[in-house]
Amino acid sequence: MSLASFSAALRRRTPILVWGRSYGRAALTNDLVAAAIVTIMLIPQSLAYAMLAGLPPEVGLYASILPLVAYAVFGGARTLAVGPVAVVSLMTAAAVGQIAAQGTAGYLAAAASLALLSGGMLVLMGLLRLGFLANFLSHPVISGFITASGLLIAASQLRHILGVSAGGDTLPEILASLAKAAPQTNLWALGIGLGALGFLHFARKRLKPLLTGWGLSARAADLATKTAPILAVAATILLAAGLDLGAKGVALVGAIPQGLPALSLPEFSPDLALKLLAPAFLISVIGFVESVSVAQTLAAKRRQRIDPDQELIGLGAANLASGLSAGYPVTGGFARSVVNHEAGAETPAAGAFTAVGIAAATLWLTPLLANLPQATLAATIILAVLSLVDFKALRHVWAYSKADFSAMAATILATLLWGVEPGVVSGVALSLLLHLYRTSRPHMAVVGRVPGSEHFRNVERHRVVTSPHVLTLRVDESLYFANSRALEDKILGLVAERPEIRHVVLMCSAVNAIDASALDSLEAVNHRLKEAGVSFHLSEVKGPVMDRLQRSDFLRALSGRVFLSQYEAAAALEGEAADQMRKPEYVI
Amino acid sequence: MSLASFSAALRRRTPILVWGRSYGRAALTNDLVAAAIVTIMLIPQSLAYAMLAGLPPEVGLYASILPLVAYAVFGGARTLAVGPVAVVSLMTAAAVGQIAAQGTAGYLAAAASLALLSGGMLVLMGLLRLGFLANFLSHPVISGFITASGLLIAASQLRHILGVSAGGDTLPEILASLAKAAPQTNLWALGIGLGALGFLHFARKRLKPLLTGWGLSARAADLATKTAPILAVAATILLAAGLDLGAKGVALVGAIPQGLPALSLPEFSPDLALKLLAPAFLISVIGFVESVSVAQTLAAKRRQRIDPDQELIGLGAANLASGLSAGYPVTGGFARSVVNHEAGAETPAAGAFTAVGIAAATLWLTPLLANLPQATLAATIILAVLSLVDFKALRHVWAYSKADFSAMAATILATLLWGVEPGVVSGVALSLLLHLYRTSRPHMAVVGRVPGSEHFRNVERHRVVTSPHVLTLRVDESLYFANSRALEDKILGLVAERPEIRHVVLMCSAVNAIDASALDSLEAVNHRLKEAGVSFHLSEVKGPVMDRLQRSDFLRALSGRVFLSQYEAAAALEGEAADQMRKPEYVI
Repeated sequence: MSLASFSAALRRRTPILVWGRSYGRAALTNDLVAAAIVTIMLIPQSLAYAMLAGLPPEVGLYASILPLVAYAVFGGARTLAVGPVAVVSLMTAAAVGQIAAQGTAGYLAAAASLALLSGGMLVLMGLLRLGFLANFLSHPVISGFITASGLLIAASQLRHILGVSAGGDTLPEILASLAKAAPQTNLWALGIGLGALGFLHFARKRLKPLLTGWGLSARAADLATKTAPILAVAATILLAAGLDLGAKGVALVGAIPQGLPALSLPEFSPDLALKLLAPAFLISVIGFVESVSVAQTLAAKRRQRIDPDQELIGLGAANLASGLSAGYPVTGGFARSVVNHEAGAETPAAGAFTAVGIAAATLWLTPLLANLPQATLAATIILAVLSLVDFKALRHVWAYSKADFSAMAATILATLLWGVEPGVVSGVALSLLLHLYRTSRPHMAVVGRVPGSEHFRNVERHRVVTSPHVLTLRVDESLYFANSRALEDKILGLVAERPEIRHVVLMCSAVNAIDASALDSLEAVNHRLKEAGVSFHLSEVKGPVMDRLQRSDFLRALSGRVFLSQYEAAAALEGEAADQMRKPEYVI
Repeated sequence: MSLASFSAALRRRTPILVWGRSYGRAALTNDLVAAAIVTIMLIPQSLAYAMLAGLPPEVGLYASILPLVAYAVFGGARTLAVGPVAVVSLMTAAAVGQIAAQGTAGYLAAAASLALLSGGMLVLMGLLRLGFLANFLSHPVISGFITASGLLIAASQLRHILGVSAGGDTLPEILASLAKAAPQTNLWALGIGLGALGFLHFARKRLKPLLTGWGLSARAADLATKTAPILAVAATILLAAGLDLGAKGVALVGAIPQGLPALSLPEFSPDLALKLLAPAFLISVIGFVESVSVAQTLAAKRRQRIDPDQELIGLGAANLASGLSAGYPVTGGFARSVVNHEAGAETPAAGAFTAVGIAAATLWLTPLLANLPQATLAATIILAVLSLVDFKALRHVWAYSKADFSAMAATILATLLWGVEPGVVSGVALSLLLHLYRTSRPHMAVVGRVPGSEHFRNVERHRVVTSPHVLTLRVDESLYFANSRALEDKILGLVAERPEIRHVVLMCSAVNAIDASALDSLEAVNHRLKEAGVSFHLSEVKGPVMDRLQRSDFLRALSGRVFLSQYEAAAALEGEAADQMRKPEYVI
């Protein structure tokens, strides 16, 4: 590789080298403002999501420093805000909970290892250009998974609102455990939790109209409502300190070690890596899909485009940084990115400035957070995830496609009843199976000519002209192993029903590929039709399909011809068939 | 269910009630002759395949009695000869070997349980009309699996030819074990084995021309060559008895219990059933595919058709009968069915008469078989399975499709290196993945009109007419989750490249389905094109696809129109685009 092409490749894979060159004063101001707002939003979020992942609060802060800097260097999306997010935190808790108990050093090390593994996978997938893998998660499966995860997360946080200890990874477990623990409800925690829920709900739904009514600009009112969580945090800290709620049994965040995380490789054994492989893969794919859809939505608003392979590298770098700085898996979050975007962020530098803000908070604000009730954090989580729950999508998908609906419903049920990993795996498996099942029974239509045109349509749906001696069948699917027998049965069945047929034309306008199994079937059809005195023709065969057929013996053995268009086929064969009828000695 | 409809359903699922009514003297004679020939062929085969399955020789005989009667009642294929076959015997050995040691009562019980389970599954699949499941085994995977199994079986039989004890389930294990045991080669066994191999090879390749040269009819010569195995058996029995080879260390079949098997349920625990579930499923599917392809080939020769669901029930009944009479899994065998067919069998009654023949042999001939050298049986197996090995298919498939070739090569390698079950599973998984990968990167072509026609073809392959303001893209694949992003990227990329475009037409002649994910993508494309001042149109949308689109909001939001034909679309839009160019105030 020459130096010039190496530097081009490096530039292509390191977006900061591109946007960094033209970085000016105006962009700097905008990025700083956005960073300040996102920092305020991210402090309670990072503590809350760390709690959701079963980790001490400082781990959430650590995961919001270096990963953001790494993404600023390698990430391609201009306004994506990376950090801890709800679904990935829940998946981390499920995966790491299999390895070690919460509160142990092993749990911390496994969470960091998970980030490292996931980061390595993402970078590798980006370099191998495997971004397309995310396409195998269908939209209904993703939407179902996010809805179910939201419900699961909200349910899991109820224990903090009640101030009891309860557990569980699935909805029945969580509810049973809550029911058992409910008599121990701490009324102080309940009061704080319900109060925070009410305040945050009010801020989300009512505060903006109120503020604009008081004369604030819409944008300012919108940004002001985003500070509601930090207000709730401040108010409940004061309350807990003033009333000494810790002594009254209210769970508080407690002492958070002051200072930045040390850079170090987590303790890493091949055995641990093997156990974490499957969850790391799932977390990588889910995190990538969540992040890339946010990034695409925001980029489209500013007429920018996203390179999915670059996003893989950016997120991979962020996760590697998280794993090396005692963090846990991160990805681009929806709400936070929207705030970053609307606050005016112009480049990924806003993310780096946010990292500076969080680092400052880690150094100097942590003593203030010791008195923060966990119920407040739970309230912020519950309101954030319930906005992800979307039951309307179920109704829409039901109306459009029963197959997609069943994949979505299966994902929701499996996630709620069996947990996050079985949920997403069964959703993906079911949507693949349904796709294969559908293509294994292809739609096939006998077609005829639309009078006065060269156009051929289904005889059952349109008034068309047909010949009694020529049967034209259009098969509406690529021919491959799963449907080749269905085609064979259909053609031979139609010919058996109508002894007057002399020519069969297979109209291939919808056939995008013919694999080796389907080729065998076509050879069998050709052979059997020939024995029955019927010629077999093809029409409208596409270029790539024809190229391939020419590499086989099929065209040589074909009893009929290959026509460029169905119109030519009909014109030629209807004449021939009429001739044959006049000379019956030719007919077998 | 009324009595009449019940009796119709019963008749539909019990073919003997149909062909039995018109059964006459001529058919009886033909069936008896065919049965006599198949019986002579089946005696050594059933002993040999039982040995291959790791079972005592009488189990092979038992599996050739009641199962044939059951198939005669419920089977739909007229001339299929059911019984022990090579590949299923090998799969039985692999499955049962995991449960118990050869020679124990547990091994026998597990083999019979496997037949029962497989029979139950087959009947259930038949009643649920799941015959289509067999379609998911692509031809290259089946062909690769059979080739690899043939090699594996031949290698496993070499130990009997050498007269040594050796083992192994995979090719490397078998070869290593043989190499270790080779110094103990028994020269008598080797002589008998090589002699039998030579004689059988001669009979297969040379005997027929020789006999027809002596004036025999081609058919008689053909049938005479089929008696070669029984001749080899008789000759080596006499040799072994005359020279007392048993005392010289040659492994003989030994005493076979005289008498028919007792009907009984094998000892069956839920735990055992659970362990046998996966192998029973694989054996059912592989056995069904092997059997149904033979049945179809033979039925086609007599212009009969096969109902795959009835075949499932027939084979299921045969396996249930085998499990209840101390047998092991059976299916329709290729060579034996061809002999049955060519010997003139007309109905499944020939199978029942064969069963009587084998029962008679079990009652009276077994004492004669005690001196049969195992090397003779190994020689018959080796020659039978080597005829299944087909390396030419590899070359053909390579020329036609690299994807099919890799599925085939993977199946062969995985079967040889890891064993039969991993072999078939990895072949199926790989062929599904390759299919999905292919459809996730659909072929898309910008098309133009072929001058002087209403036909539209790829601009890169044909000389066609296009308009600078109208972009027509034909996508050659159904739109579903795996390829919806590729379509989005392609359209938006093309429009970004050509700012003069005012209309985008998606030509859907090859789109057989649009799932919910693809609908989301089309909505996104419509939205973004609208923002860029470009109208989005569809053409040649198929009936079922249109029906479904009408149940969504997409058509209401669509910025353009849906045209019946691409010709209409081009005519309408090219005129409009020209108008818009003259009135630039309309253009955004």
